[in-house]
Amino acid sequence: MKEYQPAAIQEIRLQDPFFSGRIRINNDVTLPANVRKCRETGRIDAFRLDWKPGMPNQPHIFWDSDFAKVIEGMALSLMLYPDPEREKELDEFVDLIISAQQKDGYLNTHFTVVEPENRWKNLSRAHELYCAGHLMEAAVAHYKATGKRKFVDCMARYADYIAEVFGRNPGQKRGYPGHQEIELALCKLAEVTGNRKYSDLAAYFINERGQSPNYFETVEHCEDTENLQADRPIREMQKLRGHSVRALYYLSGAADVAAESGDSSLFEACERLWNNVVERNMYITGGVGSTCVGEAFTADYNLPNDTAYAESCASIALVLFADRMLNQTGDARYADVMETALYNGAISGLSLGGDKFFYANPLENDDQMFEHGQQMRKRQPWFGCSCCPTNYCRFLPQIASFAWSVSDDCLMVNIPAACAGNVKRKNTSLQFRLSGSYPYDGAGTLEISDASGAGESTIALRIPGWCRNWTLSLNGKAVADSPQKGYVRLRREWKKGDRIEWKFDMPVRVVHANPRVSADIGRAAILRGPLVYALESVDNSAPLELIRLKKGTSFTLKPAEGLPEGTIAISGDAMIQADTDQLYFEGDLPLSPGRFTAIPSALWQNRGDSSMRIWIPEAE
Amino acid sequence: MKEYQPAAIQEIRLQDPFFSGRIRINNDVTLPANVRKCRETGRIDAFRLDWKPGMPNQPHIFWDSDFAKVIEGMALSLMLYPDPEREKELDEFVDLIISAQQKDGYLNTHFTVVEPENRWKNLSRAHELYCAGHLMEAAVAHYKATGKRKFVDCMARYADYIAEVFGRNPGQKRGYPGHQEIELALCKLAEVTGNRKYSDLAAYFINERGQSPNYFETVEHCEDTENLQADRPIREMQKLRGHSVRALYYLSGAADVAAESGDSSLFEACERLWNNVVERNMYITGGVGSTCVGEAFTADYNLPNDTAYAESCASIALVLFADRMLNQTGDARYADVMETALYNGAISGLSLGGDKFFYANPLENDDQMFEHGQQMRKRQPWFGCSCCPTNYCRFLPQIASFAWSVSDDCLMVNIPAACAGNVKRKNTSLQFRLSGSYPYDGAGTLEISDASGAGESTIALRIPGWCRNWTLSLNGKAVADSPQKGYVRLRREWKKGDRIEWKFDMPVRVVHANPRVSADIGRAAILRGPLVYALESVDNSAPLELIRLKKGTSFTLKPAEGLPEGTIAISGDAMIQADTDQLYFEGDLPLSPGRFTAIPSALWQNRGDSSMRIWIPEAE
Repeated sequence: MKEYQPAAIQEIRLQDPFFSGRIRINNDVTLPANVRKCRETGRIDAFRLDWKPGMPNQPHIFWDSDFAKVIEGMALSLMLYPDPEREKELDEFVDLIISAQQKDGYLNTHFTVVEPENRWKNLSRAHELYCAGHLMEAAVAHYKATGKRKFVDCMARYADYIAEVFGRNPGQKRGYPGHQEIELALCKLAEVTGNRKYSDLAAYFINERGQSPNYFETVEHCEDTENLQADRPIREMQKLRGHSVRALYYLSGAADVAAESGDSSLFEACERLWNNVVERNMYITGGVGSTCVGEAFTADYNLPNDTAYAESCASIALVLFADRMLNQTGDARYADVMETALYNGAISGLSLGGDKFFYANPLENDDQMFEHGQQMRKRQPWFGCSCCPTNYCRFLPQIASFAWSVSDDCLMVNIPAACAGNVKRKNTSLQFRLSGSYPYDGAGTLEISDASGAGESTIALRIPGWCRNWTLSLNGKAVADSPQKGYVRLRREWKKGDRIEWKFDMPVRVVHANPRVSADIGRAAILRGPLVYALESVDNSAPLELIRLKKGTSFTLKPAEGLPEGTIAISGDAMIQADTDQLYFEGDLPLSPGRFTAIPSALWQNRGDSSMRIWIPEAE
Repeated sequence: MKEYQPAAIQEIRLQDPFFSGRIRINNDVTLPANVRKCRETGRIDAFRLDWKPGMPNQPHIFWDSDFAKVIEGMALSLMLYPDPEREKELDEFVDLIISAQQKDGYLNTHFTVVEPENRWKNLSRAHELYCAGHLMEAAVAHYKATGKRKFVDCMARYADYIAEVFGRNPGQKRGYPGHQEIELALCKLAEVTGNRKYSDLAAYFINERGQSPNYFETVEHCEDTENLQADRPIREMQKLRGHSVRALYYLSGAADVAAESGDSSLFEACERLWNNVVERNMYITGGVGSTCVGEAFTADYNLPNDTAYAESCASIALVLFADRMLNQTGDARYADVMETALYNGAISGLSLGGDKFFYANPLENDDQMFEHGQQMRKRQPWFGCSCCPTNYCRFLPQIASFAWSVSDDCLMVNIPAACAGNVKRKNTSLQFRLSGSYPYDGAGTLEISDASGAGESTIALRIPGWCRNWTLSLNGKAVADSPQKGYVRLRREWKKGDRIEWKFDMPVRVVHANPRVSADIGRAAILRGPLVYALESVDNSAPLELIRLKKGTSFTLKPAEGLPEGTIAISGDAMIQADTDQLYFEGDLPLSPGRFTAIPSALWQNRGDSSMRIWIPEAE
């Protein structure tokens, strides 16, 4: 059972300097831009099912999922920004999708019009169940945003049909998705319908995957089952390998099923694989999946910076997995990673303007790399495989729900970003305001503005993993309680005017990596609070490749130029290496003193083409 | 016009501690192993042309080239090790190949039996002209080794037919190879047949490539012309990009055509692209092509170590290109690079036992990388695409011909590896012996044992680019001449007993890379003479990732354990970093004094699975 739930979208309205503006931009810019792209590329018209061979815009195997994510984003954003026109547009889209459902419940544009003869025949590569999952998530969001059941009912019929096709009974296929996603979606569907059948189907997909005889190998002659995490059952995996987005959606679904079913061996697998990721396979930004070859995890500690893939969707998926583990355990170590990914690796794929996207998020970019792999080095309006842009549509509106967790008895502040809240649960019916300039300042205040009808309850404040010194007071009196699982828990009958105040010391931190991470040897990263900083060429006069971080330097904070108001840049002493034309040479190049400026790494490449590096070589 | 020619195979017999044993092993082990693999996989039987759909071992588009390279290797090795049984086997193979020639001259197993309807229709991807080129090279080698013309005549008929099909006349295809190689092969065919028609065809392929309208784009709808160096004409290329083996075979053919035709604009293109490679895109080992994605060059200075592709064939191709540039110019700067590639990047793909091969040659391997990309991290007996093993078959017998260049008037010692020589040219009819233990010692002697019939001629000794101090004497008298283009030239009427003695100081060198090479910042490579050294785990008690090269250390030479007699290892002071379990942490890990041992990098992974690194992080 989950101890906590993410806060509902409409319960928390962020007012912080980092995310709140971007959530609005997602509503105003990103969503319309993605709708437009879906329309232009044929992803919307595909649901009319009138495509014929020879016509342009042949519905692709993953198109349904792209449009579904945009629909989900429209619905979630509607909860923050009610808009009758947007709702009307959304309903028309939903009606169009529903109209594409077949009599038996099936709903997939590609396999209805392009290759109907191959339905369920190429699970390992054809994204059929993946598309179904995203449609289910969209339906759940639509129901929560509008209260209308039509889309959820449609998806329940689809899920009923899928439950007939797949399973261990005679006549059923013992298959599972080639791209995991439907597992977590089925758990959401179970929750809103109250029908356990759907979470049981999710459990089947999780538990059957990789069992022997191997379905993908024997039935579909798939040779690359490791990339699909289908080479062995989840409980036998010691390391998380293969396609990173698949892997982390898989674990998110597995965590949901473990919570629903109370299956401790499944939860242990989630915990073990979590540890493998965060202890050996995660960039300091929360990026994961270090190679473009198969968009995959590679080997423990193999975390190259310039060729880092670290797909936007993979970091988003890590947030989804972390959020589930956090809410099952109430343990801040999951929040620490979730926060890192949120402020760095997961958001860096989105331009500040809201209309351009990285697919890959390298931790280092040199000018000359623009020429090589250009599409990966500049944010683009769209991609042939456009999973990342559409994923942002639905990710941004959820950020506050990651920041706050709620139970009948407790309000948990995972991330103390400024916001107004209005939470109504059994014992925790509170209105409040959290102020401060997190993540740029560690001081904050939570003030209760209305507690009518509330009984005794707990407000739990996470002490960030990066924070060494902090103070906390309640109504002016210092609180000396030790954190439990990383949270200081304050319990009382809350009253209007109650004030919790805290100050997290937020010094600039110089961080090193495990020596097994070859790319980071002799280098340091600059962090402050949850933010990973980066040198960007536009702020530095010396070419980045010549800048060395002077060991022991002090740091100066200053407003960042050309970035959103409130953004803090960091300056410090550098040593600048002399340049050379030679490729290889004997002797050392001299160093001379200089300065550097760093900005929050996720905000790079918003001021024109630039080079960037997060791990900075050090010098005495 | 070429100023020099590579020495003929049979003119120089190496007796050095590095290559001579391996050339013998190539004859005794590598060649038979490759013949066996060609037989097992169907590459030989393919020439029977009796394959039918549904049968196993469908002839693949590049199979002919693999067998051709083995044939070429058998012929070349026969010149060093005459063997009637080997010659008989070779002749049978040649007869089999000839029997597969079609009436019109065409000879390709795949396009004769698998898809005859597609002959010349998929030039950009189907390796048709590439296979033809390797067959031509094999035929030339067979003729030189045996004096028999049948294979050369067969290939001349094929080339005649190709010259009818391709060209700028009405009715001809204005195409060119998808994988360059035939250009240099046609120049060889022109040389042995004395028929300029073939070098003219090579010139056509070189000059037509990438012209507008683009043949691959317009006729074959190829979208990736940059990978094939067909995105623009060679004279418009500023940087060498795309598939590295294609690129360097292309330049080798272009250099041949430039020499043959005296085309200075073509030679200038070769020179410009040479500079781009060696000044910005070459590993310190002479490895080239830094990414597995497209087996390609990427961006200037993008030279990652652990993910380095540096295909064996690409380094071999670099040697072929360097050899051509050297022989056209007599300039030692080409020999410097050729020597680097020969002793390091080009030979590292071959096991000491002669029967296992690297396709990729990373400059760093960590234990955990074995799990990821296993086939690339351990030498293998064979590959599905087995270009590298078969390339070694023909490469090894040629090494002495790279080491020595000859003209009517001059003998040029490019690489002073111990050997016995017997060269007969117009004014340079000399027998001699070069002694010493190069590359492990810089002292050497060249003694003339017979000069009967020789007029006045020059012996030119290259002063290696890595050598700062050297002495040279002729018959005991110091020679003070300055090198010209890197060679000290001694001219006289040579007599039996004449002795040239030299001593190249060969200190251990600590080399750094241009700061734009991100992977090498804060690191040094250890070199001695032409050899690039590497730490290998089997020689070092500390895990390699914890070893730092102590700045300013002195070095000790000692015999390397478990490697061929004469191999020198290098020891020195290291700082050993403390270990940690944490992935990221604040503060520094302490260092304690220790030692390291390094071996010639090309010899790694011959004593069991090991980790390795060439670029070693430095510490004070």
